[in-house]
Amino acid sequence: MEEKPSFDILIMGGTLLTLSESMDTMENPVIGIRDGRIILVEKGENPPGKHYPAKEILNAEGCVILPGLVNTHSHLPMVCYRGYADDMPLMEWLHERIFPAERKYVNRDMVYAGSRLAMAEMILSGTTTFCDGYFYESSVAQAAIDMGMRGIVSQGFIDFPTPDQPEPAKNIKIAEAFIDKWKDRSPLISPALFCHTPYTCAAETLITLKQVAREKDVLYLSHVAETQDEIKLIQERYGLTPIRHLQKLGVLDERTVIVHAVWVDEEELEILRDTGTKVSHNPESNMKLAVGVAPVPAMLRKGITVGLGTDGCASNNDLDLFREMGTAAKLHKVAAMDPTVLDARTALKMATIHGARVLGLGDQIGSIEPGKCADLILVDMKKPHLTPVYQVYSHLVYAASGADVVASIINGKLVMKDRKLLHADLDDIMENVRKIARVIAEG
Amino acid sequence: MEEKPSFDILIMGGTLLTLSESMDTMENPVIGIRDGRIILVEKGENPPGKHYPAKEILNAEGCVILPGLVNTHSHLPMVCYRGYADDMPLMEWLHERIFPAERKYVNRDMVYAGSRLAMAEMILSGTTTFCDGYFYESSVAQAAIDMGMRGIVSQGFIDFPTPDQPEPAKNIKIAEAFIDKWKDRSPLISPALFCHTPYTCAAETLITLKQVAREKDVLYLSHVAETQDEIKLIQERYGLTPIRHLQKLGVLDERTVIVHAVWVDEEELEILRDTGTKVSHNPESNMKLAVGVAPVPAMLRKGITVGLGTDGCASNNDLDLFREMGTAAKLHKVAAMDPTVLDARTALKMATIHGARVLGLGDQIGSIEPGKCADLILVDMKKPHLTPVYQVYSHLVYAASGADVVASIINGKLVMKDRKLLHADLDDIMENVRKIARVIAEG
Repeated sequence: MEEKPSFDILIMGGTLLTLSESMDTMENPVIGIRDGRIILVEKGENPPGKHYPAKEILNAEGCVILPGLVNTHSHLPMVCYRGYADDMPLMEWLHERIFPAERKYVNRDMVYAGSRLAMAEMILSGTTTFCDGYFYESSVAQAAIDMGMRGIVSQGFIDFPTPDQPEPAKNIKIAEAFIDKWKDRSPLISPALFCHTPYTCAAETLITLKQVAREKDVLYLSHVAETQDEIKLIQERYGLTPIRHLQKLGVLDERTVIVHAVWVDEEELEILRDTGTKVSHNPESNMKLAVGVAPVPAMLRKGITVGLGTDGCASNNDLDLFREMGTAAKLHKVAAMDPTVLDARTALKMATIHGARVLGLGDQIGSIEPGKCADLILVDMKKPHLTPVYQVYSHLVYAASGADVVASIINGKLVMKDRKLLHADLDDIMENVRKIARVIAEG
Repeated sequence: MEEKPSFDILIMGGTLLTLSESMDTMENPVIGIRDGRIILVEKGENPPGKHYPAKEILNAEGCVILPGLVNTHSHLPMVCYRGYADDMPLMEWLHERIFPAERKYVNRDMVYAGSRLAMAEMILSGTTTFCDGYFYESSVAQAAIDMGMRGIVSQGFIDFPTPDQPEPAKNIKIAEAFIDKWKDRSPLISPALFCHTPYTCAAETLITLKQVAREKDVLYLSHVAETQDEIKLIQERYGLTPIRHLQKLGVLDERTVIVHAVWVDEEELEILRDTGTKVSHNPESNMKLAVGVAPVPAMLRKGITVGLGTDGCASNNDLDLFREMGTAAKLHKVAAMDPTVLDARTALKMATIHGARVLGLGDQIGSIEPGKCADLILVDMKKPHLTPVYQVYSHLVYAASGADVVASIINGKLVMKDRKLLHADLDDIMENVRKIARVIAEG
């Protein structure tokens, strides 16, 4: 008998959804994890015959094992504004509530405290990788390392003074310094650059920061084509729609992520496809802010890679990607008046492997295959709302919620088990944000 | 000092949302329950001074106390088909999957077992009252009594033989017998009549059963104006749209509930308003089956009473009304391209007091006021996704899920505490449905 290596974590039993190219599934699998990687995926014997030495064994009986979910867009520290303003016209919400509050209360401590709460919520709801854009993004990165989460941390840019960048002229230096600081510092962290929008960033800003992103080989993101007002404004300013404007500037490529892409026409979809540009789709935010319905079925038909995002908690108001999957699938069915346009498997791919590809991490995460990073979660199916089981994909998308996740492993480390964070004090994390919120509420 | 009566249950602390006409809220309330009724609602002293003798005291610190949610439309036993067929065209789904499975597998035992699972799920997600329509509805009623849930149980009618009514000609007798059997039998149960649709029930069926409902003073329900195909069919058959057809038949009044009402025009809304007809809105089902978006903001502007429903689990696929509230609020914002059209308070009213009024139970349940039935739930706000708290209504609609409910009282009886059912064996309930599903899966 072949000598088995020892594992840091061994998962045995349950149902495995690999989310591999062939969408393999396996009943009663054995999954071995060591040094942050998946090194074994095989069919378990019943009754168990082989002995697999492991530091920790997880019994996944009655659970589904799937890749950790990938949130391709958020502003994590905005959990501090969760429920601070809702049900208001977008511009009033943004200019009278959110922007003034941000100008007044955003600082390093708020960003760190908010990020930790957001990460606690994400870990407890099955997300293992996020892509964030906000101010003081180094504090988000530090929070991710402290919480054991994988993240793309995007330094934000905008052509007017912000809490963390009082001099927009120094953008390039700040971008380079941010990337140099975080590149190769932790296996969990990848730095990126986030140009807020094509109407808050001049053409020159968009171009020069894409140049930096290319030189340093990092992801480049922007909120684009979110509202009809934006389309009008960009057309008035440049004589082109936002996507065409970005194409003309030469900033669209396979390392660029367009967040939202709600108002895009057929030809713009072809531009996105031909340039390899990725899309982050945020259906709940788009619905709550009433901006419109992105043409996701058309994007998928064209072969554009689309991931799911929650957006920030001021416009959603949670970070639960299970809900986001269900909403995405249902929203596009009714928008197209066709229940076949976005099925459960596609929704789950958007929240895992496709999300990973959007972030340029498709070879590292997003599926459960030997050699990949060990980012995976266990969902307990022994719940009334998940009973009976005919098709696992259906339950994950249409009936499960983040509260059904019972274990979360990120980069080979067990960070949550039985709905308890193993390396963070949740009460302390919540209390820190409550203190910040009391100050905000007092105005 | 006045002598206080003793209570069966006393709830102390937390935040009370009464959902009364004036939407009163109260911090640190004392709520006394006896003999199934709310008999005391007063501001608690801090520190507690008075002594309230009670058999059971619930500490609601950190919780929101609100009326139990009211699900105005479901087919509870269909939990047995949860995830059995998704992402298919409506007619194919119905005629090739659901109807054949129903013809083959529906029986008294399946209805009882499925209803118990559905009720377990509802209790665990904060619903205390349902309105059901299915075959063998007496088994649903019995399950409700056994589970301690409040329900409107609607005997279903359709003009062709069904598993429980092989002879449609005997409809009137069956209707009368069903009502006589369940009227005044239990404080939890109200019988009602459900005419499937205006295209599966002839005009005569619709009229005669409404007559029975009027004579016996019970609720009368029908799926109406759900799909464009239905509109076309009814127009071809009667030269009128479904609502106008029902108006002409004289079956619309304040004791009639129209389920769905997706395809209704301005004048039809006025017919509904003028006749006092109620509407059950099922947004997640409408989205998943891709039938359309009901004009709910217009209904509300006209003053029509609209409640929320989940529909059956083959078309949703869960019974969580918290999700349904969030979906309703977000769907109508994006459909109207206006974030103000359906705010958090309105969504919560639809799931509580307005739902109660839809079912004709507005004077009994749906708000927390002395004299009303004691149907109330506690939601634990000490969760990362519900932190911080600025506005409680916002969190209940946009961030909470059924999994945040930590106590449920129905008709003065504590049926769930700390997420455990107190009077039912959940494992047993789930296993019974798994057995049924195995038979269905084998075909």
